[in-house]
This record gives sequence, structure tokens and C-alpha cells, in this order.
Amino acid sequence: MDTEIGSGDCLAWAARDASGILSPYRFNRRHEIVGVVTEVGSNVKGFKVGDHAGVGTYVNSCGECEYCNDFLEVHCSKGSIFTFNGLDSDGTITKGGYSSYIIVKERYCYMIPDGYPLAMAAPLLCAGITVYTPMMRHKMNQPGKSLGVIGLGGLGHMAVKFGKAFGLKVTVFSTSKSKKEEALKLLGADKFVISSDQQQMESMTKSLDFIVDTASGDHPFDPYMSLLKIGGVLVLVGFPSEVRLNPGSLNLGSRSISGSLTGGTKETQRMLEFCAANKVYPEIELINIQYINEAIERLINRDVKYRFVIDIKNSLK
Amino acid sequence: MDTEIGSGDCLAWAARDASGILSPYRFNRRHEIVGVVTEVGSNVKGFKVGDHAGVGTYVNSCGECEYCNDFLEVHCSKGSIFTFNGLDSDGTITKGGYSSYIIVKERYCYMIPDGYPLAMAAPLLCAGITVYTPMMRHKMNQPGKSLGVIGLGGLGHMAVKFGKAFGLKVTVFSTSKSKKEEALKLLGADKFVISSDQQQMESMTKSLDFIVDTASGDHPFDPYMSLLKIGGVLVLVGFPSEVRLNPGSLNLGSRSISGSLTGGTKETQRMLEFCAANKVYPEIELINIQYINEAIERLINRDVKYRFVIDIKNSLK
Repeated sequence: MDTEIGSGDCLAWAARDASGILSPYRFNRRHEIVGVVTEVGSNVKGFKVGDHAGVGTYVNSCGECEYCNDFLEVHCSKGSIFTFNGLDSDGTITKGGYSSYIIVKERYCYMIPDGYPLAMAAPLLCAGITVYTPMMRHKMNQPGKSLGVIGLGGLGHMAVKFGKAFGLKVTVFSTSKSKKEEALKLLGADKFVISSDQQQMESMTKSLDFIVDTASGDHPFDPYMSLLKIGGVLVLVGFPSEVRLNPGSLNLGSRSISGSLTGGTKETQRMLEFCAANKVYPEIELINIQYINEAIERLINRDVKYRFVIDIKNSLK
Repeated sequence: MDTEIGSGDCLAWAARDASGILSPYRFNRRHEIVGVVTEVGSNVKGFKVGDHAGVGTYVNSCGECEYCNDFLEVHCSKGSIFTFNGLDSDGTITKGGYSSYIIVKERYCYMIPDGYPLAMAAPLLCAGITVYTPMMRHKMNQPGKSLGVIGLGGLGHMAVKFGKAFGLKVTVFSTSKSKKEEALKLLGADKFVISSDQQQMESMTKSLDFIVDTASGDHPFDPYMSLLKIGGVLVLVGFPSEVRLNPGSLNLGSRSISGSLTGGTKETQRMLEFCAANKVYPEIELINIQYINEAIERLINRDVKYRFVIDIKNSLK
């Protein structure tokens, strides 16, 4: 992004002030970045040196297509430019949080609200916005309604936290009994169901308004669709190898299955403000870069609760 | 429904004044019925003798569950009672339009607006409401937006007609070239695409806001999902043997696939009024009951444009 230094609408901050994130599913990408602004272009209006800022999964887009105009830049008609391993408009490859500094156009930077713990803001910029966006699109912020969350990883634990912040009754579905206590006590879910327990599953028939499905492993959809009330919606944010279901699972209950892919810049900023106002904090484990090999081993073994955040600043001291 | 004669909230009309409907997919059911009211119970408020009235796919429901309270009686928690071949609360089997008369609770009867051709109203009560309901739920009544209709049978031709009445740009997808002229000239579609023509299909990428999929034969979903704009929705009203798609077809474009099953009583009445106000008329072929065997042969061969309606009154003269 060096060519953009002179464009006047960019921010820069030193990597030694940045925290990064490793996702269990995408640990080769580093696209949830927070840090402190060290320099601003002359046309930058919303940020000043010293502000806490974040960058999500994309750092550029055409800025003029119908989707950019609707602040759905991730769906830019010409393709948004990924923060990590993306081909930038100057032909360089973006390096995400693995950079000595990052320079980003103001539009693709987010202001971390005052007092929000900086390291905790990082996972909001991919995991958080990926579940927040469809939850808002499908109007899940209606207190008293019921939400099912499938899978309890980085995305799933955020869906539980948003669900509780929205005033929903949250049920976690997991294949692993070991997650029960955490789901209920640490994350505040109301109910925990082992998805392989047919009796438990059937007892939930037609009881849920919404489901957020964060499981990327293959799993059947029909049993979950039958847990939705009439008109209910299952939001898919994981990437199983296929989605296969009986048409009756959709038709007979006027139900929907809907996909989603992170979110736009305005929604991301709104989410950060919502998290600050409602004390929604991701669960993180702050590590030094020297711990990276062990962290990756633990990611492979799914031994992370729920996001590693790399403290670059202290790592490089 | 004989036990309900004395309940005071029922209508009766003679079958000799009723028209019925044979659907190409469900010709063993007769549940789109219109006729002239011959008698009303003492508590009936909305109908009088001589009114034109209709009955759809269900004739009863519990009337007090959350879905009945929301006028989504077809989704009644205790099960709605089908108009044809349903087990009624008195233990009898409902006979739909194959009856010498029908007695129905007022709630499950619809007023056919003055001047609306009676026989044409019949197909609205299943085919019509089955596509109208999800079109309204997904806000397809936005002039200028674009609609794809897959399949051009009884349901598909109504989706085209509603689409045009809503001011949409309508593209018909069919496997059969023979339907092109009718789609464009008779039904008023704007565009006709042979779904097996990959080039034509690809030229439509990301161009549609909505798709109504009326095909009951098995067909791939991914090629159609890719024709939807970001955030677009495909509504399934047919019953293929399965729905199978790549999760990317949902996630990458924040798209949805949503099922639907006919509609509630209030929506059905609103649809009838919409059709009368906007001159939306199903295409029908009026036949006598004596023609029934030939009609069924023609249904099997898909040789009907687009609904047979049986003229019981003239058949029995």
C-alpha cells in the first residue's frame, strides 16, 4: 500500500503498536488488526494521531459501484482487496498484520471506541462482524426471541455474546460435552444441547426463531431446520463442503437458509459502538509472536478459547 | 363438515354453483373452489346469500395458537385441516370441490371481489396465493426490481403475472423453447432464457433481485443462485427431491433460499383484492366434468395453459 502514502486519505500506524489475530480456520491470514494511529494524511477527517483504530478483512474497493454506494464494500462489483494476501491496485500483495506498518484509506479503518480494550477489539473485525451482520440483517435484535448457535469457536462464541446482548434466549448446539460449562457459565448461554442426542434435539422442535450456524465441518441441515419456528431463518457463516436439505425443511415451515460474508464499513463501525456500549468482549488469549508455533499447533487441535491475539508491540521489545 | 351446520359461523353453497381446479401436480386434490353462497349461519357477518366466495387449501385450524393468531392458519400448531382428503375434527374426510355442497367456517372463506370472473378466481386460491405470499414476504412488490421465474406451469405463470403487476422486470427460465412466445406475448415477461444454455445463463450473472422457483423436477441450484444480486433471495415453492448447493452460493453473496407453503386467510383476501384492482387473471381452460379423463391425460403430458377449471354447474345440467 506504499503508493497510497501520498493520497492524503490514508492512515498509518506502526506495527509495533498493532495487535493481530489468528483464526482457527484461517490461520494463514491476518486480517483483524488493531493499533494506534501514528500518522494521518492531510485529507483524513475522522482520525488523529494517537487514536485507536482497526482494519478488517479488506483495505480497498472501487468505492463507486452499487454495493460500495450501499456501504457493502466487501461485495464490491470489482472485488474488494483483501487485507492479507490480496492483490492491491498497485500490483503489490497485501500483508495484513504481518507488516512493519500499515497504511490504509480512511474509509476502511474503524475507530475503536474510547476505553474498549484494544486487543479485544481485534477479533470483532472478522469473527464479530461476520456474525453481527446477518444477525442485524435478519432482525435478531428482538429481546425475548430465541436463538440457536451451532458450533462454539471464534464465530460461535461471538454469536452467543451478541445474542445475549440483544436479549435473546440462546441455545448452544455442540458435538462436544466439554463445552457445556463454558457455554453456560463463561458465555452466558441459556441452554446447551449435544447435537447427536436425538431426544434433546427433538425436544427443541419448532422452538427457535433464528439459528446462526458457524460449523464448517459437514453436518446435516434438516434436523436443525426442524428446530426453527414457522418463518424461522438459519444463517450460515461456516463453509461445509455442501448444503443439502429436504425441500420440505424450507417449504413446509416457510423457513429460510441464508448465507453471509463479513460486513460493510458502516455496519462494522456500528458493531464496534454496540460492543462498547453493551460491554460485549470477545474471549481472547494474548500471546507473543515467539509463541506462534505452539499457537498454531493448538489451533489445529482446536485448543483455543476463543481467539489468539498476537501482541506485536511487546513481542518486539 | 356436516357437524358444523349448526355452529352459526358457516357458509354453504351448492356444488352446482361451484368451480373446481385440477392442478398438474396434484390432480388428486381439489382445493381451489369458488361458488355462490346459498345459505349463511346466523353468526356469519362477512357474507350473504348470492355473494361470490372461495375456499382454498384448508377449511379449519385451531384458531388460537400463535400462528392462527397471526393469520398464518396454514401453519396452525395443531395442524390445519385440508380442504380435500383431510381428517376433519368430526372424524369425516373432507371432499373439497368433489362434494354436492360445501359448508365452511367464515374464517376460511374468501370474498371474490365484484366483477372478478368467478372461474378465474379458483386458481388464485392455491397457485396464486402460493406465489403471492413469499413474493410479499420478501418485498418483491418494488417496481423496477428484477425477478426470475423458474418453470412456467400453474404457479410459474402466476409468478410472472404478479411480477408484472408489481412493476418488476421479469425473466422466465425454462427448459422448453416452446414456451418462449407465450412467456413473452401472452404473459408479458420481459425476457426468456433457456436454462440449459450456459451462455445465456452466464449473461445474467448477478442481475436478479429475486427468483421464484416453481420447478418440482430436480435441477441444480448453484447456477440460479449465481444470477442473484448480492443479498438476493430464491424462493422455493416446488418440491424437487432435494435442495443441494455449494455454501458459497449462499455465503459469498449473502444470498438466501427460502421456502413457502400457500398463505394465511388475511393474505389470501388481500391477494384477491390486489388481483381485482390490478386485473391479474390466471390463464384457465374451463372444462366440463365429462372431459375429466382427457384433462388428466393432458395434465400428465403437461398440456394445459395453465389451469383446468371444472364448470360443475354446466356439467350437471
